[in-house]
Amino acid sequence: MPRLVDHDARRRQITNAVRRIIVSGGMEAVTFQTVAAEAGMSIRLVQYYFGTKREFLLATHRSVMEDAGARFMRRWTALGEDASPRTKIHALLTELLPLDEQRREETIVLGTFGWAAVTGQSITAEQTFAAPNALTTIVAGQIARARGTDPSPERDAALVTATIGGLAQGMLQRYGTPDEALDLVDLLLDRILGSTTESPTHQHDPN
Amino acid sequence: MPRLVDHDARRRQITNAVRRIIVSGGMEAVTFQTVAAEAGMSIRLVQYYFGTKREFLLATHRSVMEDAGARFMRRWTALGEDASPRTKIHALLTELLPLDEQRREETIVLGTFGWAAVTGQSITAEQTFAAPNALTTIVAGQIARARGTDPSPERDAALVTATIGGLAQGMLQRYGTPDEALDLVDLLLDRILGSTTESPTHQHDPN
Repeated sequence: MPRLVDHDARRRQITNAVRRIIVSGGMEAVTFQTVAAEAGMSIRLVQYYFGTKREFLLATHRSVMEDAGARFMRRWTALGEDASPRTKIHALLTELLPLDEQRREETIVLGTFGWAAVTGQSITAEQTFAAPNALTTIVAGQIARARGTDPSPERDAALVTATIGGLAQGMLQRYGTPDEALDLVDLLLDRILGSTTESPTHQHDPN
Repeated sequence: MPRLVDHDARRRQITNAVRRIIVSGGMEAVTFQTVAAEAGMSIRLVQYYFGTKREFLLATHRSVMEDAGARFMRRWTALGEDASPRTKIHALLTELLPLDEQRREETIVLGTFGWAAVTGQSITAEQTFAAPNALTTIVAGQIARARGTDPSPERDAALVTATIGGLAQGMLQRYGTPDEALDLVDLLLDRILGSTTESPTHQHDPN
């Protein structure tokens, strides 16, 4: 009987290995040799699935985007339609912070790709702004829901996107602890949506 | 007569070359060969000034920190004591955004060092949080000045630091234009200090 091979599982084994190498040694540590060794495969087998380094890098990037997106969708769906705007935005933002090893790995991999593009070594075929654009759009929708008729939730949503990126980077560089980052997420929501705790000059209506 | 040699100028020539290589090719493009070629020197002359790659990397990092710090101090001093808190914070934040080629180069170099530490290749002897700490302290001082008796300007200052980091990164990755980033700086100051334009739910006192 022919042996059944799960090709998807093997690709996954390779891209998981790429992730771990990026986390521990950066993009420059990624080679066919190191990936094959980390994946527990022969180089020839890795090459069977990915002919070039660029191909397995692209597949790795895509796998991270898919994992993060799927996890976020599960969380979003579980919240339900009636959850408050603040609850929804809070859930979205915390899903994107490197608060556990899985999210830390994902944030590092995506950040490494993003940074490589800055210094002239763009790996992804096009500069992909799909993720931050999607984040900003969803946050803008919830801000609009919270404010009713107030105009331009997009600017505040763009600010939220920038702040979360900065908080994530700070956490990765051990500049802020997880608790500090979560506290700043609460403060950010206070400032954007109107405070439930303190405010710049006086109390707002909560939410 | 012995020829007078400006050793500081030569070190500067080398670290400037390191900066340009990091911007165009990332940390992994930095070698004695590439640095010497970019600086227009022999490898032996580079080695005279910096025995190891680590040494010229550290010197490059330090030169960027000093340049940015000096430029900021000049701007801060020129503002004068009576400038409003918002004006002072705004000046500080815009000095740190990659709004021209010089600041873009500095932001890329510092970001590259910071990111290398995340993936296990720490170049600087210690994790240096001197710059973000200094930024947060100064911003907190100005927020306290604006608010009078309101407690805890440090949380808002930490939020500002995170947001500026995220805005700078977004600009580098061409996610936001300079004008968009400056607009979000204004919005950030509106939210933190109380709006001079619009507000989440109702008008605040300006400043």
